[in-house]
Amino acid sequence: MASPVSPPTELREQVSSWVERLHEETTGFFTVLDRGGSFREDRWERPGGGGGVSRVLTGGGTYEKAGVNRSAVEGVLDPSLAHRIGARAAGIEPLNFFVTGLSLVAHPRSPLVPTVHLNVRYFEITNSSGKRVDAWFGGGTDLTPTYPFPEDAAHFHRALEAECRRHHPDFYSRFKTWCDHYFVNTHRGEERRGIGGIFFDHLRDGEGGLGLSQLLEFAQGVGGILPEAYSSIVERRRDLPFGERERHFQLVRRGRYAEFNLVHDRGTLFGLHTGARIESVLMSLPPLAAWDYSPEYPAGSFEAELMAMLEPRDWAADF
Amino acid sequence: MASPVSPPTELREQVSSWVERLHEETTGFFTVLDRGGSFREDRWERPGGGGGVSRVLTGGGTYEKAGVNRSAVEGVLDPSLAHRIGARAAGIEPLNFFVTGLSLVAHPRSPLVPTVHLNVRYFEITNSSGKRVDAWFGGGTDLTPTYPFPEDAAHFHRALEAECRRHHPDFYSRFKTWCDHYFVNTHRGEERRGIGGIFFDHLRDGEGGLGLSQLLEFAQGVGGILPEAYSSIVERRRDLPFGERERHFQLVRRGRYAEFNLVHDRGTLFGLHTGARIESVLMSLPPLAAWDYSPEYPAGSFEAELMAMLEPRDWAADF
Repeated sequence: MASPVSPPTELREQVSSWVERLHEETTGFFTVLDRGGSFREDRWERPGGGGGVSRVLTGGGTYEKAGVNRSAVEGVLDPSLAHRIGARAAGIEPLNFFVTGLSLVAHPRSPLVPTVHLNVRYFEITNSSGKRVDAWFGGGTDLTPTYPFPEDAAHFHRALEAECRRHHPDFYSRFKTWCDHYFVNTHRGEERRGIGGIFFDHLRDGEGGLGLSQLLEFAQGVGGILPEAYSSIVERRRDLPFGERERHFQLVRRGRYAEFNLVHDRGTLFGLHTGARIESVLMSLPPLAAWDYSPEYPAGSFEAELMAMLEPRDWAADF
Repeated sequence: MASPVSPPTELREQVSSWVERLHEETTGFFTVLDRGGSFREDRWERPGGGGGVSRVLTGGGTYEKAGVNRSAVEGVLDPSLAHRIGARAAGIEPLNFFVTGLSLVAHPRSPLVPTVHLNVRYFEITNSSGKRVDAWFGGGTDLTPTYPFPEDAAHFHRALEAECRRHHPDFYSRFKTWCDHYFVNTHRGEERRGIGGIFFDHLRDGEGGLGLSQLLEFAQGVGGILPEAYSSIVERRRDLPFGERERHFQLVRRGRYAEFNLVHDRGTLFGLHTGARIESVLMSLPPLAAWDYSPEYPAGSFEAELMAMLEPRDWAADF
């Protein structure tokens, strides 16, 4: 059931203050989880309108690099941008876009701890009178392990499934499948960057019978999922010993991560094309990455097992 | 003065056998220069037509990774491909494309030895009767140092200028400028990946008054330039001592190299979109690369001097 349309500023302000709180909570969460490092903050303004706050932790206890960025950007919606972001609204009247959101990527030191990514965002298109003509939520979170621990993948997906179920019976299966189709290095056949999670975009008023305020609640659930979905994985893996071989494979998988973000990722390409601060857009890139030429992994090796785990699978149910 | 148009098969065969010879000579050159490593060869076929031979040296004496690829690919020229490669020929009749060329990237171990890239290629568009309706040469070579040795940049550019002058009085200045505008990470302002060299594309029959056979001679001159332009640089730098700081900055500059190739490079994107063997297309990526968050280099540091050297400058004349 769709909620009554609220004036754009009200929802926009509600989302914006939530994104600010989430930024605080998330950097607090990673500061505790890291056990040693702290975030550096950079505030930036975008020439065309808006800006952001980037917080990056480098050389931490658990994380080699973790970046948590929030931004609120607005400007004129030209046709190529409208096409790029998938806005429905078009026509001859001049339109403006507004987008606010949080994105994070955390690259752990240990190859036994998976890299995690999370993003939530709210887009709004308004006409010259300030009337909202289109609005939607997007986001998701996904896990990129180097070492094959099926129980970690299952734990992550079960937490996502439980959160999704609180909002809509179909969201988990729909957004899990969407994620499996999104984080793919299509230029390498169908190789996925990790074991997935959920991904969603263009959730508009009425999506699955939910209004925008209910979709905001869903986005809030996803934005706050990591303490439940991820922290116990870190706790149980970070002190385990590992060797040079695991570390090297971590660097190779990070190379694939860089490939995905630079060639395919919507958020990265949106940032590159809208004049956001480049160091904030590319803070998702790994601190160190490797490219091996044509590597082959023997059957039964941990590397081959990890590669097999990248094939989509119903982790919440199977394991 | 344009040469008489020869049947497509004749020039095509002439170029193809030259590319094969150049592949032999170039891998021979790097084998000697490396002092220790040897190339592994992979032959591949492209489902749509054609294929290639990749030779990659990893863990060598001088080079951490060096790849020399030759390929000859053909197929149907669809409109999006025609647009992508800048073909002039278009219309309702079905057309075919053929391209053969060599490309190499060599990433040295020592940060005091510059990375080098070279590419030469020949494109031909034919109609269904096999008649050539468009044809051109492209290519270039550029140098990417980590450590600021202005005399190395000057040596490289002087060798290119001398070779260009043998073919046309304007080629060096035109293609040097083109190169300065091509190898740019535009998403990072105007940051160039290295100190340039030459870059050219779409050199068609009659370009600068030269016919296709003379343009082939020019491409051959560029293809064989490295013994003159590059080997003495390697000889005088590779045994010099360096530290962790130089090594780390090398990895950061390699990160920029990966960004350029994945986001902007025509050859890489052409390979990603035409179904060439992915490991051959991406063999240009560095063996190891780093991304520092928002690094700053104090005035007078070698890093700041290197960054200043990336600004376009008339290296052949100035130094």
